[in-house]
Amino acid sequence: MKWYRSGNPFKTGAILNYPQEMLEIEKIEKFKFLTEKDKTVLLYEINKTDYIYGLGETLGTLNKRGKKYRLYAADDPNHTPEKESLYGSHPFVIVDGINPFGFLIDYPGEIIFDVGYENKNILKIEFEKEDFDIFIFETNIKKDIIKEFLELTGKPHIFPKWAFGFQQSRWSYPDKEAINKVASNFREKDIPCDAIYMDIDYMDNFKIFTFNDKSFEDFENFAKDIYSKGFKLVPIIDPGVKIEKNYYMYEEGVKNNYFCKKETGEDFIAAIWPGLSHFPDFMQEETRKWWGEKYEIFTRLGINSFWNDMNEPSIFFTDRTAGELMGMVQNVLANKDKEINPLEIQQKMMTLSNNVQDYKNMYHEDDEGNKINHHEIHNLYGHNMLKSSADGLSKLMPEKRHFLLTRSSYIGTHRYGTLWMGDNMSWWEHMIVNIRMLQSLNMCGYFYTGADIGGFGCNASPELVIRWMQLGIFSPLYRNHSAWGTRNQEPWAFDEDTENIMKNTLKIRYSLITYAYSEYMKSVKNSKTFITPLFMEYNTARAKETEDQFLYGDSIMVTPIYIQNAKGRYVHLPEDKWLFCLMKSNEEKQAKIYESGDHYINVEMEEIPFFIKENSLVPFNESMNYVGEKEITEITVLGFVTDKAFYEIYDDEGTDTKYAENYSKLKIEVRKKDEEFLFSVNKEDFGDYESKIKIIHFEIYDEKNILHTHKIEI
Amino acid sequence: MKWYRSGNPFKTGAILNYPQEMLEIEKIEKFKFLTEKDKTVLLYEINKTDYIYGLGETLGTLNKRGKKYRLYAADDPNHTPEKESLYGSHPFVIVDGINPFGFLIDYPGEIIFDVGYENKNILKIEFEKEDFDIFIFETNIKKDIIKEFLELTGKPHIFPKWAFGFQQSRWSYPDKEAINKVASNFREKDIPCDAIYMDIDYMDNFKIFTFNDKSFEDFENFAKDIYSKGFKLVPIIDPGVKIEKNYYMYEEGVKNNYFCKKETGEDFIAAIWPGLSHFPDFMQEETRKWWGEKYEIFTRLGINSFWNDMNEPSIFFTDRTAGELMGMVQNVLANKDKEINPLEIQQKMMTLSNNVQDYKNMYHEDDEGNKINHHEIHNLYGHNMLKSSADGLSKLMPEKRHFLLTRSSYIGTHRYGTLWMGDNMSWWEHMIVNIRMLQSLNMCGYFYTGADIGGFGCNASPELVIRWMQLGIFSPLYRNHSAWGTRNQEPWAFDEDTENIMKNTLKIRYSLITYAYSEYMKSVKNSKTFITPLFMEYNTARAKETEDQFLYGDSIMVTPIYIQNAKGRYVHLPEDKWLFCLMKSNEEKQAKIYESGDHYINVEMEEIPFFIKENSLVPFNESMNYVGEKEITEITVLGFVTDKAFYEIYDDEGTDTKYAENYSKLKIEVRKKDEEFLFSVNKEDFGDYESKIKIIHFEIYDEKNILHTHKIEI
Repeated sequence: MKWYRSGNPFKTGAILNYPQEMLEIEKIEKFKFLTEKDKTVLLYEINKTDYIYGLGETLGTLNKRGKKYRLYAADDPNHTPEKESLYGSHPFVIVDGINPFGFLIDYPGEIIFDVGYENKNILKIEFEKEDFDIFIFETNIKKDIIKEFLELTGKPHIFPKWAFGFQQSRWSYPDKEAINKVASNFREKDIPCDAIYMDIDYMDNFKIFTFNDKSFEDFENFAKDIYSKGFKLVPIIDPGVKIEKNYYMYEEGVKNNYFCKKETGEDFIAAIWPGLSHFPDFMQEETRKWWGEKYEIFTRLGINSFWNDMNEPSIFFTDRTAGELMGMVQNVLANKDKEINPLEIQQKMMTLSNNVQDYKNMYHEDDEGNKINHHEIHNLYGHNMLKSSADGLSKLMPEKRHFLLTRSSYIGTHRYGTLWMGDNMSWWEHMIVNIRMLQSLNMCGYFYTGADIGGFGCNASPELVIRWMQLGIFSPLYRNHSAWGTRNQEPWAFDEDTENIMKNTLKIRYSLITYAYSEYMKSVKNSKTFITPLFMEYNTARAKETEDQFLYGDSIMVTPIYIQNAKGRYVHLPEDKWLFCLMKSNEEKQAKIYESGDHYINVEMEEIPFFIKENSLVPFNESMNYVGEKEITEITVLGFVTDKAFYEIYDDEGTDTKYAENYSKLKIEVRKKDEEFLFSVNKEDFGDYESKIKIIHFEIYDEKNILHTHKIEI
Repeated sequence: MKWYRSGNPFKTGAILNYPQEMLEIEKIEKFKFLTEKDKTVLLYEINKTDYIYGLGETLGTLNKRGKKYRLYAADDPNHTPEKESLYGSHPFVIVDGINPFGFLIDYPGEIIFDVGYENKNILKIEFEKEDFDIFIFETNIKKDIIKEFLELTGKPHIFPKWAFGFQQSRWSYPDKEAINKVASNFREKDIPCDAIYMDIDYMDNFKIFTFNDKSFEDFENFAKDIYSKGFKLVPIIDPGVKIEKNYYMYEEGVKNNYFCKKETGEDFIAAIWPGLSHFPDFMQEETRKWWGEKYEIFTRLGINSFWNDMNEPSIFFTDRTAGELMGMVQNVLANKDKEINPLEIQQKMMTLSNNVQDYKNMYHEDDEGNKINHHEIHNLYGHNMLKSSADGLSKLMPEKRHFLLTRSSYIGTHRYGTLWMGDNMSWWEHMIVNIRMLQSLNMCGYFYTGADIGGFGCNASPELVIRWMQLGIFSPLYRNHSAWGTRNQEPWAFDEDTENIMKNTLKIRYSLITYAYSEYMKSVKNSKTFITPLFMEYNTARAKETEDQFLYGDSIMVTPIYIQNAKGRYVHLPEDKWLFCLMKSNEEKQAKIYESGDHYINVEMEEIPFFIKENSLVPFNESMNYVGEKEITEITVLGFVTDKAFYEIYDDEGTDTKYAENYSKLKIEVRKKDEEFLFSVNKEDFGDYESKIKIIHFEIYDEKNILHTHKIEI
């Protein structure tokens, strides 16, 4: 790994462990370094056989060639394909060519990545200022690039085990009655679920760290009741503080100088959900501390799961942008005989929100009292808000793992929580976006992540929600969420048939909890991705080009259906044989050996297709209503063994922070010797945690498609 | 075919030949007919194995199941997947199930088609009024449904032969110098092209039927010059007439009552490109005649090719909608302490344009002087504008075939010209939209149609334009068009390599002119689609589900690349063997026999993949700079013959309207007898047209992949 420095970079906090040696940027070899008049540029000549992966949360193909990306956090509610920015900035890239290498840039302002867009053969990286660090990973082994990235930026935050359960959300369940109804529906209908989200309407008039006294009267008892049914509540937290006399957050913030400023030194103002608001200056230690402590109104009720939204920070408009638009419209109406320019009005409407000039008018102060222009460190706002939240929760409930999502993120934000993929749409096209982004986000440390299942904006059809829920089985964060005014998409929102399919789907997810949690914990421990793109594992051109399949843990390859009305799909199976599994439910499944190569598989609406690797095992447990409802004492190991296969079930208590000391390992081995199979299990408990698994059933297929069963009691 | 009538339908003019017997709607068998309080409804219970195709210009999959469509012409510049309306209304459907049938509805107002969206098993068709005709085609043979549809609605307009050449457009080439430069680029670079479009900036201040005297000074000589180089000019025509004293169109229209009215009887006003404008009332014979005669300013220069745009009719805003928005913005700025509702402002901005209430405030008068509310016949506006244009041109240049595109269309508009697919985007996702829409528009009579190649809105990458230009070879209308402020996408707009690929691509298109024109003319003559979905030809589930391949004429199956960075694709080959052709240029091609089934084919950036059917032939001619530049005297017939193959080359003069009398047929036959091939050609000339083809080369593959060549001189 080599570390090059250009200029005098801002201390972002992204890098935890710097390499020993810092080199001057002029010494960089992989890139041509140029300073042009208004910008600094890195150039890389793309080889014809290079595949360029990375950039975390961005649209477009997994191989980023052919598009331009602008890493500048944006609240964009319309993820159409031409968009260059989403909510975060993840300038980490793997170039998979003759000699694979990776690189990471640490720069908190706008970066433009032109990946062969202007010129097919040039990767051009543009910075407004010359001040950045770049780290080059020249290991050649793609998996080691990820390891080195995580050495620099730290291990991912460990989520509680229930985070692998299903999570239901909507903007908004308007009151506690609605949430109670959702909760009882899940339990009465025997559909598993672990968490229910609370969107902005739980607050009093969108004022942060308040409750609406009418719709959520006696919040404490309501929360207690929901938790007693095995659910977690996940309230939303927005950064904007409403300007309102006597509102405690406003008064404390103004008094203590916690808010971002205008150039003149007055508090910066913009309109967001609560109306005209101020923005906490999360660059300041004091502000972060103040903010983090406010979570106490939740933690005193045992709530430590939250989503931090709107933290790009999103701005709906300022009096400047709204004033300009109004002036233009007035002008048109007053000059009826003059020429109208509809294009200009349209452009003005499109730049009303999240206007760069507004960000340039906003200022932070660092802990030494230096004034910092927001625009120059724009991409750190969400990162520091999440840091503030995580630090606060760690102090308030130090023994418990928190659950924190953020919309805006930076490199290293994975240490505090994770991101969800923001405001997608109920578009079939956004399923493939989801599939690709799971892979690219895992590459930069967001092992636990996911998109809004079923799509957030627009109306969803039952088929779309079914197919997306089926994909969701293999999405670490498994949250169904939908927007105001759109069709409901809870499992029961459609017809009975659809409800049954989703119920079976969710039960499969819950039967895979043992596998999911084991694979996730081992991924973090071993610094390898949990969701893995095929290019990381297989070095053929076809594997590098297969973007609509991914590895989920070490044993499973996922091949989702993501086209409307499709009754099957093509799959590419890299080297070796695979066991094709087609599950309707935990009770109804088919399995069949497939040779490597290309195949068309038939998949009915109620079927979930995936493949198990040769010489691999997958443990299934009994489904349950929520994680922890029942002790898992029996496991069925499904596998495909032609030689020998090994699986290690990892487990721990699931919510406390002592997972490094107290955990268990169950080592399972299946060995084929001639036509015989040998089965063995080896139990290892560490600290004061003990595996509860007593019985293991084996369902092992051999290369002739013959099923071998066995049972071991521990 | 059965004809059912409900209520008292408006005479749309869509149907040319009514069946003898009219039945009451209550007698309809295929549907349940219901009148609910505010609407009339037809219900069809969808069978699990039904595939539902049709609806012409709509988004979504070819099989329309799972989505809701609203047939109400809309100028929507953002074709995102959730959109229910595009520019036209084509309520023609084929239900491909156990007993296939089709139906056509004639109703000029809004129709909602819910194709298993609310309820997976119900097709629900909703009308605001009860007055409509429905025609049911119960032939069982899918191709006959198309025949019967065309019997009702008439044969497609016959386009001139040059329409199969390439066409270059941009909003806008700002002046004649720019157009001259484009023209000379094509000729100097030896890149074929037949037409150059003129977007709105050729006019004086967007005033229709005027020329900008500065940027297009001496238009007559400019036009003469362009035509002398073998190009056609295609000016845009918009319906809105600018309100401006002494402007002849305005003065004549007001004086003679040619404009649509408000309820009060004053002329209706809305803002569009020229500013505040009036809209010609194309429902009136007199207005249509007046409008049609105005084309004389072009026809006197020999120009008879046009695109009719903005004829939904598009409305940017009225003082009503703009006033409401302004009031809301003012209110927010004035009440800084009050709650803001950003959702409402956003919604108001989105309904500023093409607002239904504005259409409800607009009135027509029919030829009997009856007042008709525009909203109720909204979908006829573009249809009647095109009729006015077509009738005008037929009078002005009766001996010549005109070339007319329209953005808005209805059933039967195909008799006057065709539609292009409107304002798409430079999105990869819009290539598959293009592929599907070619198929669904062909089904309802628009044999000659196409999308903006390379995408209209947003910036295109070189790879996108290459892949789209390659698809364009098989798009009847082959027009590259791009929007104001976006990246240029002419063949030379990128790098040299890209230019070479596009040049080779265009030369292949021109080498297929003989095939394209023959297939097109035979399609019209035989009332069968020119672009044919696989479900029309093959009755397997897989064929019915394969939407990203299509038949182009009788011999070719097209399998385009439409994914960024893809270096190949999967193809499904229905029954029989196929000859896989991979062309880099007319000089560099590979061909290989493939068995039926599923395959992955490798396709490099510069390669164009397609398949030739077993026992089929494809004639190639020498490429040329524009259609008619050279006489075609030699043909190379590429084919795949295992038994016998027959091909008929149709030809005629290409521009005159006497094609029914003067034409030629060249009948080519290849017969395999044991290991020998027999070749024969039979020439038939009709009227005063004579085929110029003198030499035919044969390149015939047999099932063993062996190439057999032969030459015949006539």
